[in-house]
Amino acid sequence: MTIRKFAIADASLERSPGQQAEIYVGNLVDERHGGPITIGYGRYSPGQSLTETMAVDDVMIVLEGRLSVSTNAGTVTAGPGEIIYTPRGEAVTIRSHEEGAVTAYVTYPHWRTAHA
Amino acid sequence: MTIRKFAIADASLERSPGQQAEIYVGNLVDERHGGPITIGYGRYSPGQSLTETMAVDDVMIVLEGRLSVSTNAGTVTAGPGEIIYTPRGEAVTIRSHEEGAVTAYVTYPHWRTAHA
Repeated sequence: MTIRKFAIADASLERSPGQQAEIYVGNLVDERHGGPITIGYGRYSPGQSLTETMAVDDVMIVLEGRLSVSTNAGTVTAGPGEIIYTPRGEAVTIRSHEEGAVTAYVTYPHWRTAHA
Repeated sequence: MTIRKFAIADASLERSPGQQAEIYVGNLVDERHGGPITIGYGRYSPGQSLTETMAVDDVMIVLEGRLSVSTNAGTVTAGPGEIIYTPRGEAVTIRSHEEGAVTAYVTYPHWRTAHA
């Protein structure tokens, strides 16, 4: 794979696996491409939440709206241009607010094969 | 390390190593923290350029301005909310335009120790 440029319009957003919230994710680079990391975009409708234990190291860059991520240790909230880093093994609840959110994400290793 | 939230104000931006352009980078998560990936912010003054061969897989998310990245295969240009992915081993020239640029970046593995 050579250098690539992506916009959110390039992503095929599908419901985030294993839950029924209105949270959609679309990988643009992942295990199909031979590299070590997954790259994609996420879109959160207003007032959604998702609880999971992270199988990978996860970086979310908030592009629009706001997201809050809660653990036993507390809650962080990020807006446009801010980054939330969740190490592998953390049990988290991710919540969107009234304006929803759009994120770019990077995971190591690939979240889809780590979940499987 | 537990979950963390970052803004660009949290980064100590320093000149990108090994060159004299007005390009500044600041790691927020790296080899000091025990995880597999480096996370940080970059700031490009207008009209700067940097040529290097990537020692790591690199993801840049453009937050402000525009960046172009050129290889033998051509040039991609990204603006706010867009992602440029450069696999390890690519020889690239990164250029900012008249408005400069701000990026968030993620690398695997850690660029500082891969360069050293």
